[in-house]
Amino acid sequence: MKKRYLMTPGPTTVPSEVLLAQAKPMIHHRTPDFNQVVRDCADGLKEVFCAPNSDVCIFASSGTGAMESAIANCFCPGDKVIVCYNGKFGQRMVQISKAYGLEPIVLEYGWQVCVNPDDVAKALEENPDARGVVVTQSETSSGILNDVEAVGKIVKNYPDCVFIVDSITGIGAVECKTDEWGIDCCMTGSQKGLMLPPGLAACTVSEKAWKAYERSTLPKFYFDWKKYKANLAKDTTPFTPAVSLMIGLAESLKLMKEEGMENIIARHAKLAEAVRQACEAIGLELFAPAEGRGNAVTPVWVPEGLDGKQLVSIMKNKYGVTIAGGQEDYAGKIIRIGHLGYVGDFDVIVCIAALEMTLKEMGYEFEAGSGIKAAEAVLMEG
Amino acid sequence: MKKRYLMTPGPTTVPSEVLLAQAKPMIHHRTPDFNQVVRDCADGLKEVFCAPNSDVCIFASSGTGAMESAIANCFCPGDKVIVCYNGKFGQRMVQISKAYGLEPIVLEYGWQVCVNPDDVAKALEENPDARGVVVTQSETSSGILNDVEAVGKIVKNYPDCVFIVDSITGIGAVECKTDEWGIDCCMTGSQKGLMLPPGLAACTVSEKAWKAYERSTLPKFYFDWKKYKANLAKDTTPFTPAVSLMIGLAESLKLMKEEGMENIIARHAKLAEAVRQACEAIGLELFAPAEGRGNAVTPVWVPEGLDGKQLVSIMKNKYGVTIAGGQEDYAGKIIRIGHLGYVGDFDVIVCIAALEMTLKEMGYEFEAGSGIKAAEAVLMEG
Repeated sequence: MKKRYLMTPGPTTVPSEVLLAQAKPMIHHRTPDFNQVVRDCADGLKEVFCAPNSDVCIFASSGTGAMESAIANCFCPGDKVIVCYNGKFGQRMVQISKAYGLEPIVLEYGWQVCVNPDDVAKALEENPDARGVVVTQSETSSGILNDVEAVGKIVKNYPDCVFIVDSITGIGAVECKTDEWGIDCCMTGSQKGLMLPPGLAACTVSEKAWKAYERSTLPKFYFDWKKYKANLAKDTTPFTPAVSLMIGLAESLKLMKEEGMENIIARHAKLAEAVRQACEAIGLELFAPAEGRGNAVTPVWVPEGLDGKQLVSIMKNKYGVTIAGGQEDYAGKIIRIGHLGYVGDFDVIVCIAALEMTLKEMGYEFEAGSGIKAAEAVLMEG
Repeated sequence: MKKRYLMTPGPTTVPSEVLLAQAKPMIHHRTPDFNQVVRDCADGLKEVFCAPNSDVCIFASSGTGAMESAIANCFCPGDKVIVCYNGKFGQRMVQISKAYGLEPIVLEYGWQVCVNPDDVAKALEENPDARGVVVTQSETSSGILNDVEAVGKIVKNYPDCVFIVDSITGIGAVECKTDEWGIDCCMTGSQKGLMLPPGLAACTVSEKAWKAYERSTLPKFYFDWKKYKANLAKDTTPFTPAVSLMIGLAESLKLMKEEGMENIIARHAKLAEAVRQACEAIGLELFAPAEGRGNAVTPVWVPEGLDGKQLVSIMKNKYGVTIAGGQEDYAGKIIRIGHLGYVGDFDVIVCIAALEMTLKEMGYEFEAGSGIKAAEAVLMEG
């Protein structure tokens, strides 16, 4: 027997309450019982998104489905869309835009550079006909936190331009005031801050986004927002929903309501800070720039001469602690420690201890326990 | 406490083994453990589809997602597609075709009339440039079983025309020899014969369908078949999969392999016959025509003067047995008894007994026990 710990930036650990809720005997989805589940999920998500004035769509799909829905529902072929890109998932929005025949104007940053809102302002001045701006709030691949609030203020001045935010790894870990910040379509996935298995995605739709929808000519059916809105008005879904996951979502939203959004964000901020302090105390260098470090995931450079893939492998196979490696150009070069969703102080302690033991075994020199000492100091402040 | 019985044509009852498998602690999807799950699911589905020479794609979506994938991956705007339609889900394929700018040639039958293969042959003669033929094998809404084998023989003669079969409610309940019958894209959903919660869909892709794919210019990303094929070659998925449902699928495919496809189909045939005989013994009229009655669901006319919605409601609320009502024009006029997936002899007995008790309460005159007697006779033959 080896106890397992999941410290990846998605999927995240699912609380037993939620695991058991979704393991209940199956019920039919066109029943009053399930209507209540749909209503609870929609209402709860609106709170989590801080989007009282937006509609919410819940899809049986991965997060990518919600990303595609934003493109297919808001635009026409040939539309100019400004896509900011500092990681794998920003890049995916570029790919989806191209797949749908849009003309993405790509603001490409390195994976270690935050989106600069001034660049967005300039791009919009140069392209006043742009129909959308897309930003990833919390980049899973690079750990970067982009300032979507600042970008939102800029996009607000363009009445025909919608602001689309991929907050798949953000919602439930970092602050995201969808309506207040002028986000017209904000999306998330179930396997992150919502503490569920993957398989559900959700997005918000503002009044401005509905205007874009009315103009949009791109083909859509399964992800057609209007079908979800019309059915949600009757507490139901246009297509057979992922019943067990929705029942799990209702349960996890209940847990989130009990804790309260502010407390949830504060908990994540503390855990993230503990991981960062611990890594730096061990002598590891943080990957994301100081001005853009999120609460969801901490990417860390693997020390010179060590193999990051081996590090991840030892942590998983010897110690039972699963973290993520680097993606694309950073495979083997960085590790990513996820600390979002159902994570508490001692999950961080476990993860840092396993990291210390693994680094020792790999011959990296540092004072054993120094990471834990730094983490404890942060955690005690809370 | 009221024991609950789910006798709808999807979602269907999920075996406890599967419920528990999908309630296991979450694991990460980019790991050898999960690679094995992906491989097991793909291999198992190929057997279930009888499609050794086709590729298989597994989506985190409802069945409708797989339906949309067939359209988006095979065609170009303006393509002529012959869509056969004798129920709500055939109609959905017409709607999806239109949403994607195709020119559907609709062969519309009533909900009680089987697709006539001669009509398809004629439509193809008149439209030799048609790029596809779409048939629903087992119509959930009308219970009709269409002869896709016969249609497949016709479409085979048209090298540039793909044969698309919605077998969402068929696979695992009725015979469907995907490759042998010349089906280029056959789809199913998890909440039917696969005995899983809803949230997964799958489709097969033949060589001919890949040729259509290469020509297709319709936009696609989340449902892009090629991405699934490329990733499946590495035992993984292009986007975060529905991990818990996939783990459940691997478990249910194991159960199906133990029983064997032939035995599974034979079991469904017997259960369907028992339900039909029981209903007729009670004096109820079957909705589907004699030449097209499937094994998955039996729609039955509600006796004159009775309210079908009330019947469904009493069965559910008083007796704990959930069956489905009629859809669209047949709401309140027919009931639909599902008997697919994890269903055994005594589920049929329970359902018929509840139906008898409900009909008695509603004042319908018949000999109590006559339905059960007829069902027992069929079940004993097995």
